[in-house]
Amino acid sequence: MSATNRQIRLAARPVGDVKAEDWEHVSAPAEAPGPGQFAGRTLVISLDPAMRGWLDDRPSYLPPVGLGDVMRAGSVIEVTASNHPDFRPGDHVVGAFGVQENVVSDGKGALKVDTSLAPASTYLGALGMPGMTAYFGLLDVGALKEGETVVVSGAAGAVGTMVGQIAKVKGCRVIGIAGGPEKCALLTDELGFDAAIDYRAGDVKRALREQTPDGIDVYFDNVGGDILDIALTRLAMNARVVVCGAISQYNNATPVKGPSNYMSLLVRRARMEGFVVFDYAKRYAQAAQEIAGWIGDGRLKVKEHVVKGTVDDFPETLQMLFRGENVGKLVLELA
Amino acid sequence: MSATNRQIRLAARPVGDVKAEDWEHVSAPAEAPGPGQFAGRTLVISLDPAMRGWLDDRPSYLPPVGLGDVMRAGSVIEVTASNHPDFRPGDHVVGAFGVQENVVSDGKGALKVDTSLAPASTYLGALGMPGMTAYFGLLDVGALKEGETVVVSGAAGAVGTMVGQIAKVKGCRVIGIAGGPEKCALLTDELGFDAAIDYRAGDVKRALREQTPDGIDVYFDNVGGDILDIALTRLAMNARVVVCGAISQYNNATPVKGPSNYMSLLVRRARMEGFVVFDYAKRYAQAAQEIAGWIGDGRLKVKEHVVKGTVDDFPETLQMLFRGENVGKLVLELA
Repeated sequence: MSATNRQIRLAARPVGDVKAEDWEHVSAPAEAPGPGQFAGRTLVISLDPAMRGWLDDRPSYLPPVGLGDVMRAGSVIEVTASNHPDFRPGDHVVGAFGVQENVVSDGKGALKVDTSLAPASTYLGALGMPGMTAYFGLLDVGALKEGETVVVSGAAGAVGTMVGQIAKVKGCRVIGIAGGPEKCALLTDELGFDAAIDYRAGDVKRALREQTPDGIDVYFDNVGGDILDIALTRLAMNARVVVCGAISQYNNATPVKGPSNYMSLLVRRARMEGFVVFDYAKRYAQAAQEIAGWIGDGRLKVKEHVVKGTVDDFPETLQMLFRGENVGKLVLELA
Repeated sequence: MSATNRQIRLAARPVGDVKAEDWEHVSAPAEAPGPGQFAGRTLVISLDPAMRGWLDDRPSYLPPVGLGDVMRAGSVIEVTASNHPDFRPGDHVVGAFGVQENVVSDGKGALKVDTSLAPASTYLGALGMPGMTAYFGLLDVGALKEGETVVVSGAAGAVGTMVGQIAKVKGCRVIGIAGGPEKCALLTDELGFDAAIDYRAGDVKRALREQTPDGIDVYFDNVGGDILDIALTRLAMNARVVVCGAISQYNNATPVKGPSNYMSLLVRRARMEGFVVFDYAKRYAQAAQEIAGWIGDGRLKVKEHVVKGTVDDFPETLQMLFRGENVGKLVLELA
């Protein structure tokens, strides 16, 4: 353990886009674990679109990150010293340890992971929150049935790549919406999506109409905005719209664009439903085991976008999410 | 039967508000019933907010009213002549007979009603589509449970008065949102609502916060627009938003205002669901019987707004709905 602990703290609440000056880069003293605690060094940090929401001071499913607090983030650490009976030096542990080099924890919400089965980063992606989000959002909230048509936006992201592939495992027709020809090629050529629509390339409405002749049974929304509105025009009877995220709206300084076409929920006897993955915590282990099985037999491919650097690279790496520069799960791996 | 049949036909598709010149007043010859048909004279005609949607040429749950066609409307008629085995002269029959003085029908979708048990108009209101809409929307789509908090907008209308009263029968706390002090007084003083909020009187958001300290479990929306958006800020965990109508948006010439606060569906693990009452047709009889029982034992009051006139008064009477001038079910009773 180094004598100092480099940390990224929230300095100011961003208005619109997050700016460099909204963060504070701090060298704090590295702490030793107290009774019942363990210490560890960070291996890899998760970057998630939801982080933008955590920076705003408004009621949500988690309290906002406090001004001056270490930025909240999932990460995998290696235990370096322990006074905790369940964690030993050398253990790899996933938890909400924050954007910092060194961690001291009482083990609450922390989970040991086996990095001989999958790389540490995968416990932040396919086997972590994005994987759980895709699994429970699609199968529980979306109540997906074999043979249905699934459309997912943000399809090349951490959650989207999982949603599409799980829907394929379940015998569905899958259309992904993503930005740019490279992402679209990845979806169809590598991940087995039936079709991909490049929202930057032109008429999304027409493309979606062509690709969903029988309508959409499950629309899994990661983006909100205009694409949500277009998807609402294509709902099949009794469709389910799974509200997972709205990345197109997170940096708005102006009010969120609500879905003008929401009355199609009436015409199509459809529902739009939100969820928070934490509610499914008791079933994570079972879901992760099932996903690991699909990875093992080659039916599901893990896509990760690994940036190597230091915690000081966190602010700039976070911006990649909002510029759509990542493919699959974005993580910051510490050198 | 008179020799002529006065009819109101759709002359032009309205843009924004419906104007007098969008209608054509026609004196057609009165027809005699053919084989398997019956003829009747119209007693009372239903006026419904949904009618505005039927005038637009866009896909919906029913085809639009054709240009030059008799305006679609529910009505109760008295049979005057019949070649149909199930209907005899003197029978009172409810059906989608249109805005016209005289009707010829093959009996499809027509139902005999007993006007000794309830006035004809009630078969267009509490025991008709508005009653069915309230019953199935609240109990099936809204999955209402005893002790929950229910908020209904358009609360003094045909559906709203029923929603609130059914929720009271089911042991819920009920808040109605309506326009003007008279309507609000009706809700609390006569219909047993726990509270009423006058949306014309000021700060709806603050009033709703005060009246729903534990949040809203079921929000039954008849109006859309700003009030839907405010209600979304007050959802309790696992809330249900029942999408029944959006009268504030029906006359828009500009795009519908979508609900900016829809992401509260995620934070609150809530769902927003639409429905069309026709899907419940097989259960109408059972629901009507239950509602009739509540009326009979005084737990539910029937509110009707009866305009007496001729079919020529239909266009002006319809406007009353959009100006919020009716209290309870609006009908046009023919002299």
